[in-house]
Amino acid sequence: ILHNLRLWRQVLSITPRTDLTYSLELTYAGDQMSRNKNLSKRAHWAGNEPIVSQLMAKTVANPHLISLAAGFVDYDTLPVEPTQNALNTIWSDEELTRVALQYGTTVGYPPLRQAVLDRMLAADGCSVAEMNISLDQVVITAGSNQMLFLVSDTIADPGDIVICGMPSYYVVLGLFRNLGIRPIGIETDKDGLIPEALDEELSRLQREDSLDRVKAVYLTSYYDNPTGMSMSHQRRGELVEMAKRWSNRQTIYVLEDAAYRELRYSGEDIASMRSFDPEGDTVIHTSTFSKSFSPGIRVGWGILPPRLVGPVLAQKGNIDFGSPNFNQVLMATAVEEGIFQRHLETVLGGYGRKLDAMLDAADEFLAPIDGINWRRPSGGLYLWLELPEAIDTGMDGPLFARAVEEGVLYVPGEFCCPSEPSPPKKNMLRLSFGIQSRESIHQGMESLGRAIRKTL
Amino acid sequence: ILHNLRLWRQVLSITPRTDLTYSLELTYAGDQMSRNKNLSKRAHWAGNEPIVSQLMAKTVANPHLISLAAGFVDYDTLPVEPTQNALNTIWSDEELTRVALQYGTTVGYPPLRQAVLDRMLAADGCSVAEMNISLDQVVITAGSNQMLFLVSDTIADPGDIVICGMPSYYVVLGLFRNLGIRPIGIETDKDGLIPEALDEELSRLQREDSLDRVKAVYLTSYYDNPTGMSMSHQRRGELVEMAKRWSNRQTIYVLEDAAYRELRYSGEDIASMRSFDPEGDTVIHTSTFSKSFSPGIRVGWGILPPRLVGPVLAQKGNIDFGSPNFNQVLMATAVEEGIFQRHLETVLGGYGRKLDAMLDAADEFLAPIDGINWRRPSGGLYLWLELPEAIDTGMDGPLFARAVEEGVLYVPGEFCCPSEPSPPKKNMLRLSFGIQSRESIHQGMESLGRAIRKTL
Repeated sequence: ILHNLRLWRQVLSITPRTDLTYSLELTYAGDQMSRNKNLSKRAHWAGNEPIVSQLMAKTVANPHLISLAAGFVDYDTLPVEPTQNALNTIWSDEELTRVALQYGTTVGYPPLRQAVLDRMLAADGCSVAEMNISLDQVVITAGSNQMLFLVSDTIADPGDIVICGMPSYYVVLGLFRNLGIRPIGIETDKDGLIPEALDEELSRLQREDSLDRVKAVYLTSYYDNPTGMSMSHQRRGELVEMAKRWSNRQTIYVLEDAAYRELRYSGEDIASMRSFDPEGDTVIHTSTFSKSFSPGIRVGWGILPPRLVGPVLAQKGNIDFGSPNFNQVLMATAVEEGIFQRHLETVLGGYGRKLDAMLDAADEFLAPIDGINWRRPSGGLYLWLELPEAIDTGMDGPLFARAVEEGVLYVPGEFCCPSEPSPPKKNMLRLSFGIQSRESIHQGMESLGRAIRKTL
Repeated sequence: ILHNLRLWRQVLSITPRTDLTYSLELTYAGDQMSRNKNLSKRAHWAGNEPIVSQLMAKTVANPHLISLAAGFVDYDTLPVEPTQNALNTIWSDEELTRVALQYGTTVGYPPLRQAVLDRMLAADGCSVAEMNISLDQVVITAGSNQMLFLVSDTIADPGDIVICGMPSYYVVLGLFRNLGIRPIGIETDKDGLIPEALDEELSRLQREDSLDRVKAVYLTSYYDNPTGMSMSHQRRGELVEMAKRWSNRQTIYVLEDAAYRELRYSGEDIASMRSFDPEGDTVIHTSTFSKSFSPGIRVGWGILPPRLVGPVLAQKGNIDFGSPNFNQVLMATAVEEGIFQRHLETVLGGYGRKLDAMLDAADEFLAPIDGINWRRPSGGLYLWLELPEAIDTGMDGPLFARAVEEGVLYVPGEFCCPSEPSPPKKNMLRLSFGIQSRESIHQGMESLGRAIRKTL
């Protein structure tokens, strides 16, 4: 457990805010709580990730550390000029400027909601009628993360279950735990969650008489965090159909996290899970401009089944009263003026080259080592490694310490694994190619290869 | 109950997003939930405010309605030029621009946190040592509203109690209910919450064996929403001391909402409640730039007791992963460059004249009616009226209908009253002078006077 706030702040300052430092914040919270009897149950649920302070100290001791852990986006392609252009467009219209500076509504700025709906319909090649969708169902949030929280809080009580991949996006796993929700992991392969595994798990829960506690199936449908894989076209339909079939006493929603859809560097786009739900009552679709434009502007959204719209708005109204109107007018302007689309093309070029750099380095430095496996993503920000079974990637294991000594940081795979139904395997890790230059990626992968060989 | 979403949207479009329409959103949520068995307890708690649809229909039928209900800020003094100046300053420094467009940390942008801390220390005339305060305790949120939510969620479980004024800011009352917290109201006068009333209520709760459920005393310390009154200097000390004295088994926090502190049009500033807590373990101080600069930029903050910092950050990390860095860099720049302070002076001039317009109109149109009382605020955005006891100001009462017919909208006082320990009195209402011009304020008050006379 991390006992020293100052140390933790130093860690934060050398590794800019990442998914990993986020989990350190949780740890800090857990540490505080052991001395604090004045907190709610939810506050206690929020802080329960163990981290070993000695390894943190090592990261502090090494200022040249290359973080392949960060879920950050690339500094070089941040939209400096595009954002200025959008701001100039807004300021050229005084009325629009005043709208941007005034309160908005909890549901969000209508032109932005229209813009994200139009983009989705175009990408899916569907009409409003085919999708059975309306503008009322589009709700703007602070990144897709907030929508995932709001929906989870709206549909699930403490003790309820959400089924997700083994592994899954670990910030969402923390969010589920904070709400007292039990994440249960099922097997995945190169095409995403395995439908037979879902069917089996639901049968098992039915035998256990826990089926009525299952509220959703969560998945990242494009370039999964952490596996890098997208759910195949066929599986999307099967999975939605399966969720509907098992929705007897209560709806089992499919919570589709499409945060990385835009980050496609090769291959074809796939229609969203939402497009396989023509009734529009089962799939909750979430996405964001954080990865494709700017996380500092932080605008995400959800497309909700009609009956969840009111309840989610009530929750959001209580939490923040609506996302900042300024950011919404800015993103609406960027999309309407074509600024977003032009910038996205720049972003894709940059990330595509970084992905290639990481895959090339993996071929060079990791392929020669027996028992290391990975799949080749065609989008997103992540590479998921399976190491020989003997290697424990955890922060209290030997590889993490060696990697830090060699100057590279990764996310231990166990953070990405729900603890049910069985304890996570220890030989996985997540890498991100988002924030580092191609040279640093090359060097970091070389360091990681060395650390693995030394550990074996 | 409001059955028609379309109607509700029309209401929203003519009365721009207000505290009132917020409560309509809740109602809509409640309506949805009666048909929906798939929601969490919290979702059910969120939506329970009854509103009568016929009266809404009347507001829709009257496009010339003057809303004195809106908690909106003035359109004319929105910081169009000041924000542009701050943006230009940011864009003149490419590194700073990239910081603004990248992820920040959950706790918030350090220069902004330093700026709000410095402003508070200067206003209170205290040093860091006297306040026993450090930068670590300053956390940035999406308006002060989000901090009120986070803190409540962190310290209270469903069934716990928060003591507040009768009346209180009704969005916060809704937020408490959403969390399953019982707000219990105590008497207030021109100096805010009455300490003897608090002492009595705590004694009563002790006799009931409910004292360990009391987690906080909530109050708006400056220019209260809705009463317009500030807590006197002497009472601040008494109240903090009393909270400490009653904190036996658990801390009873003082949750200080200082959202309107900057909106002072005459009279002297008063030191914050926080300055009466030199140990820094009892008062939670929250405030915002929404009223003093721009609600569309939506940056607020809290100054927390050290032991709440970690837990609140863990909750915030789960909800939105940190407020948008862009908005924080913008506000930090506006404060550092003196842009904020210069703009604030413009804002104060504008609102001061509007307050005078409302008070003059009250003298002209309401004073002649027997049994109407109000106190004269010297800041904030609100005027609180007590009408003859016979008048029911509720949305299902005769005055609301007459007021709408006469072309004016107000917030029924019952929304601002906790339902415990006794049902709210029905003869109160809240007016705001924030959004209307002085001419419209005059006209709206004349209409209200007519409606009251017709009702009597």
